[in-house]
Amino acid sequence: MEEGDEMKQKINANSTASINPAKPIRCIVKLGGAAITCKNELEKINEENLKTVSSQLRQAMMSGSSSGNVVGMDWSKRPGFSETSFVVDDFSDRPVLDSSSFVVVHGAGSFGHFQASKSGVHKGGLDQPLVKAGFVATRISVTSLNLEIVRALAREGIPSIGMSPFSCGWSTCKRNLASADVSMVANAIDSGFIPVLHGDAVLDGSQDCTILSGDVIIRHLAAQLKPDFVVFLTDVLGVYDRPPTEPDAVLLREIAVHEDGSWSVMKPTLQNINKQAKITVAAHDTTGGMETKISEASLIAKLGIDVYIVQAATNHSLRALSGELKGNNIPEDWLGTVIRFLR
Amino acid sequence: MEEGDEMKQKINANSTASINPAKPIRCIVKLGGAAITCKNELEKINEENLKTVSSQLRQAMMSGSSSGNVVGMDWSKRPGFSETSFVVDDFSDRPVLDSSSFVVVHGAGSFGHFQASKSGVHKGGLDQPLVKAGFVATRISVTSLNLEIVRALAREGIPSIGMSPFSCGWSTCKRNLASADVSMVANAIDSGFIPVLHGDAVLDGSQDCTILSGDVIIRHLAAQLKPDFVVFLTDVLGVYDRPPTEPDAVLLREIAVHEDGSWSVMKPTLQNINKQAKITVAAHDTTGGMETKISEASLIAKLGIDVYIVQAATNHSLRALSGELKGNNIPEDWLGTVIRFLR
Repeated sequence: MEEGDEMKQKINANSTASINPAKPIRCIVKLGGAAITCKNELEKINEENLKTVSSQLRQAMMSGSSSGNVVGMDWSKRPGFSETSFVVDDFSDRPVLDSSSFVVVHGAGSFGHFQASKSGVHKGGLDQPLVKAGFVATRISVTSLNLEIVRALAREGIPSIGMSPFSCGWSTCKRNLASADVSMVANAIDSGFIPVLHGDAVLDGSQDCTILSGDVIIRHLAAQLKPDFVVFLTDVLGVYDRPPTEPDAVLLREIAVHEDGSWSVMKPTLQNINKQAKITVAAHDTTGGMETKISEASLIAKLGIDVYIVQAATNHSLRALSGELKGNNIPEDWLGTVIRFLR
Repeated sequence: MEEGDEMKQKINANSTASINPAKPIRCIVKLGGAAITCKNELEKINEENLKTVSSQLRQAMMSGSSSGNVVGMDWSKRPGFSETSFVVDDFSDRPVLDSSSFVVVHGAGSFGHFQASKSGVHKGGLDQPLVKAGFVATRISVTSLNLEIVRALAREGIPSIGMSPFSCGWSTCKRNLASADVSMVANAIDSGFIPVLHGDAVLDGSQDCTILSGDVIIRHLAAQLKPDFVVFLTDVLGVYDRPPTEPDAVLLREIAVHEDGSWSVMKPTLQNINKQAKITVAAHDTTGGMETKISEASLIAKLGIDVYIVQAATNHSLRALSGELKGNNIPEDWLGTVIRFLR
């Protein structure tokens, strides 16, 4: 649910008081729409990727604790399964895993985009029947994806809690974030849960409604919650110097963000890297192109928070989620893009 | 998700400032769990009832406007249907229907109860793995019911918006409502949407977590939003003087609530009515029994708000939802229970 204009907004520091959850936040992770859904098929989840991502998140959150059997927390019926997976004995001898605090934000992928684009929800105008219906239809689609992601995480034993930005009171004005109450997210974290937010259709003070992208949500959460690091899980290895489908595309391994907000590629230092080229990831991953993605990530990095952009469901994503890269030199055998503030 | 203890609580007038949405609220309607789900089958919706209830709500909300074809607002895929129901031409010549403002709150029925009772979420204690998992599992179950109800309403052209009390910041302390932000509900109404809330698992200040019942939510919303009337849709005709399965059970048609909070049956005035009998509706509709139900309804009626308890998906429910009973004598051919403040 990316929207270029929204991404360019400045973080509205006045929108809420700073939030300090009792428990420090280890990581905010974005599940990119392209990584967890089948982008070319309406409302189809990439089940295999979602399962691997969920499993990697569990490993990253619960490192250090016993790796016993996963205790599923989704006891609801599933299509194709006869009954629920609930077995009370599972719990009798288990301590609560002291999971480190993560926040999950996901994009829409093949959920929501169809409904939003057909109706022009991002342009506003709830007096138009098509926009009003599209708002309802978009929320139905993105909340059903949210429910499926919460369930996938819960099946891996992650105490995930779906939280819709609309319901949490997030709203915009002129398509810029105007109000965002992070306190319920912080309360959920302090109670040991993993909040799962998503790009959403929200009310807008000047144009009735718009789309609030997952990336804007992440940036605001990062500014408020100050996580150790932020991981963007996507469907390609990372950020390239040109569309990754082109044969000569070069993966950018490390990008430094400077005090003035500009950024430069630190690694690779190949002479043939075309810095002038329009830097981009797969066009279908974001409507804003990769320049926007780097700008977004730069704003987070400038807060002193490492940002890793990495392919979902790979060994590289597991290493990023586990915090292996935090503050360290980037291992040669790790593939992905690190964006860091150069002090 | 009824909990006897919670129902007995007093409305916490200090929990939020009074909310005055620009648009007056016509009706808050409770979709009882027993009326919209199959209580004896895990997570099974009573599709026929839900469709009729949704259609009646549309008629009640949009009376006066043209009864043209329903413009569906659920464009998502449905199991058993090939593609989405979206047709852009549907919208070209349609004005936005000026629906009167309703708020929908639903119970859990065969969703959530299993998960909540197996784990004891209402008793709290998130340090116990079973409770923590049950909290996650309960929220998954009730939010999936919420999504299905929002979709059923949207298919009838009702601009419904799911809003989970947990996400909206509702929480309890000692199982009594402690915090409940109604502003997002009011904002959604002012934007022309129909908020759909539900009984939910929430955080509790003294015991970590508990269950917040739909009835407590309704009472708080009624106090804050001051609707014209409140309708409880249930699976029997109304309130009886004894379990309605007993052959001599008498339907109580009108109950008057007095200044001191006591109540008395005004109609029928039959000599054989057993006022001492434990007044009750179908035991499977509520864990608290009907005395609790009347006490709850009395608290709403004492605000000067008529309460109608009526069987869902009947002609009687349509008449109640349409406001026909408001301030009037109860028609002889209307079956249900009216609870009113006797000034």
